[in-house]
Amino acid sequence: MKDTPVALDYLKFNDSNSIRVPAEDLHKQVSAILQGVGTPEEHAEITAKILVSSSLRGVETHGVANVVRYSQSIEGGEYTVPQTVETISETGTSALLSCGNGLGFVAAHQGMEMSIAKAKELGLGMTTIRDGHHIGMVGYYPMMAVEQDMIGMAMTNGNKSVRPALGARPRLGTNPIAFGAPAGEERDFNLDMATSTVASGKIALAKRLGVQMPVGWTVSAEGEPITEPRGERGEDWAINPLGGTREQGSHKGYGLGLVVEILCGVLSGGGFGAQLSPGQNMTWTMAIDIAKFRDVDDFKAMMDDMIRELHATPTLPGEDRVLVAGDPEADCEDDRLVNGVPVENGQYDEMRARAIELDVEVFI
Amino acid sequence: MKDTPVALDYLKFNDSNSIRVPAEDLHKQVSAILQGVGTPEEHAEITAKILVSSSLRGVETHGVANVVRYSQSIEGGEYTVPQTVETISETGTSALLSCGNGLGFVAAHQGMEMSIAKAKELGLGMTTIRDGHHIGMVGYYPMMAVEQDMIGMAMTNGNKSVRPALGARPRLGTNPIAFGAPAGEERDFNLDMATSTVASGKIALAKRLGVQMPVGWTVSAEGEPITEPRGERGEDWAINPLGGTREQGSHKGYGLGLVVEILCGVLSGGGFGAQLSPGQNMTWTMAIDIAKFRDVDDFKAMMDDMIRELHATPTLPGEDRVLVAGDPEADCEDDRLVNGVPVENGQYDEMRARAIELDVEVFI
Repeated sequence: MKDTPVALDYLKFNDSNSIRVPAEDLHKQVSAILQGVGTPEEHAEITAKILVSSSLRGVETHGVANVVRYSQSIEGGEYTVPQTVETISETGTSALLSCGNGLGFVAAHQGMEMSIAKAKELGLGMTTIRDGHHIGMVGYYPMMAVEQDMIGMAMTNGNKSVRPALGARPRLGTNPIAFGAPAGEERDFNLDMATSTVASGKIALAKRLGVQMPVGWTVSAEGEPITEPRGERGEDWAINPLGGTREQGSHKGYGLGLVVEILCGVLSGGGFGAQLSPGQNMTWTMAIDIAKFRDVDDFKAMMDDMIRELHATPTLPGEDRVLVAGDPEADCEDDRLVNGVPVENGQYDEMRARAIELDVEVFI
Repeated sequence: MKDTPVALDYLKFNDSNSIRVPAEDLHKQVSAILQGVGTPEEHAEITAKILVSSSLRGVETHGVANVVRYSQSIEGGEYTVPQTVETISETGTSALLSCGNGLGFVAAHQGMEMSIAKAKELGLGMTTIRDGHHIGMVGYYPMMAVEQDMIGMAMTNGNKSVRPALGARPRLGTNPIAFGAPAGEERDFNLDMATSTVASGKIALAKRLGVQMPVGWTVSAEGEPITEPRGERGEDWAINPLGGTREQGSHKGYGLGLVVEILCGVLSGGGFGAQLSPGQNMTWTMAIDIAKFRDVDDFKAMMDDMIRELHATPTLPGEDRVLVAGDPEADCEDDRLVNGVPVENGQYDEMRARAIELDVEVFI
C-alpha cells in the first residue's frame, strides 16, 4: 500500500508562479490593509501576526492573501469593526466570551491568552467564544501555550459542509482540532487537523488548480463519490467525515466533529454547524500547565524520546521518513524566515491592488 | 457509496450461541471472582459496575467475560492487589495519580471522581494516571461527569499496535478517546473511539469468528494489506491509524493517537506506547462544569436541537437512519436491563468454571 499524493502537492511554489516576500513586509501589508478599513491597530497587528505565521509555516490556505477577503467582509458590514470582545461569564479557570461579530483572530487570541493566564494561576484554563468569525490557522493558538511550557488546545466550528456518518447531506463544519505540546531538543508537537477527510481549503485549491480529487473526499446527495471539485456549498454534496466509510471508521471522524460542535458551539451558545451562516465560527481554547502535574524538563525529555522513536520507524515503501505533527510546518518556517515567504503571483497582485484601492502604504 | 458491514456484525447473539443473564447476577459474579483472588470489596464492586455497564451497552469486547483474565493477572502477580492509588501531585484543578500497578478501573474511577469534584469547585478538573492497567470501556468515565451535568472526557494509551502515518511498524497504542455531554430530552452524547481504523478487540473477534477483515484495517511490515487476522502482536504487522492512507487522512488518526500518548503517557510520566508492555495502560480524565459557562438547561436544549437535526439527516442509500454517538449503546442498554445481558456460551462456561475454581459463590 503506497500512500499517494494529495491535491496540495500540485501547488508547488517556484520562481514562475510566486514571488518571495520578507515576512516583516507581509506583516506590515496585512496590518495596513486591515487598518485601512477601520480595524484598530492592536487588532490588525494580532491578525497580521497569525496570518503571517500561517504563510511562514506553509499553511497557504490560511495565509496572508486572506486579508483581502477579510477587509471586504469588514467593508461590507459582515464583520463588526471595531469590535468589542465581551466577557459574558468568568471564573478562575473559565470564560465565555463574545467575539462581538468582529475578527475571529482577535477574540481567539484573547481567549487563548486568558486560558494561559488562568492555567498559570490554577493549572487549567478554558474559554469558549460565541459571535465569531474565521480564526485562521487553528494550530497557531496552541503554540501560544507551548511557548509558556504548557499544553494548548483550540477548536473551531463552522457552517455545515460535512456529512454525518451514514448521512448524505452536510450538517457539520469541517471542525478542526489543534493540539500543541512542548518538546526539549526536538521540535514541539503541533497537530492541526480538520475532522473531515479533507479540509475545505484543499477542495477549493483543487478546484482552482483544475485537478481531480481522489475518491473518498466528497460525495453527492446520492452518496456517489465526486472527483470534480464543486464551488458552492449546498445540499447537493458533502465532505466525508474522517474515516470515510463505516467500515473504515466514519463514525469516528463524525463523532470528533460533534465534540468540536459541543465545545465551540453548544458550550458557548453560539450555535452548531447547521445553525451557522457561512463565515460564522465559534471557537474554544484550553491551556494546561504541565508544571502542575510534573517537572517540565522531565516532560520534555519524554517528548523527545517519543519523537525520536517515531522518527526512527521504518517507512512504508517509497516514503522518506516518518514525521511528527508540526515537522513539515517547522521545516517550512525555517526556510521562509531566511528566504522569504512565497506568495502566489495572483494573490500578490490582489494584495497590492487592495492596498492601493484603500490608499494605504504598499509594502510588498 | 454504500457503507458495508463490519466484523462485529458477524457476532449476533441468539438463543443458540448465548445465554441471557440478569445484570445484577453478572455484577455479583464479577465481584465475587475478583474478591476470590484478593481484591478488596470496594475495588471489586467498582470494577464489576464498569464491566457490567459495558456488557449492558453492547460493548462485548470490554464486557464481564474479561473478569477471567483480570483474575488471572492478579493471581499471576502481573497486577498488584490490593493496590494503593497514590496522589503524586495535586492542585485545586489537577492531580497526578499512581494506579499502584493494580486494576486500572479503580484508579480511572477515582481519577474521574477527583476531576468531577475539582470541576464542581473550580470549573475544571483533570487527572492523569501512571502505573496502570486496562480500564475497560473508556466511555464509562465521561458518563460519570455527564450524570453531574458536566462534560466528561477520558483517554487511555497502551502497548504499541498501531503504525504512525507513513510508517510500517507498530509504535502507538490504539489509544481511545471518550467524550460525553448531557442532552435534555434526547439521549446523552457519548463518543468512545479508538484512534486507529479499528479497535484491537474487533480484530481479535474477527480471528475468533474466523472471518476476513476488510482491506484498510491492518498492514504487513511491507505495507501490504492483511485480511487474515493475526493473533500475536509483533513487528510483522500493524493496525492502520484512523484515516488509513495519507490521501484519506492517516496523519490525523496518527496525530490524535499521539495526543492520547501525550496526555496519558507523557503528562503522567507513565510512558508512551512504545515504552509499555502489553497490559500496561496510562489514563487521563477531565471534567468541565457546564454551569460555570452558561445555563445548563439552555446547553441541554441546544444539544437536543443538534441531535434532532442530525437524526433527521437523509441517509446514504440502504442505511436506516443517522445516529449520534451513544445511540446504539443506549438502545442496547434499554433492552438488556429488561431482558438480561446475553453472554456467549463459551464465556459463560469460563466464568462459572473460574468461580468454582476459586471456590466463590456461583451466581450465574
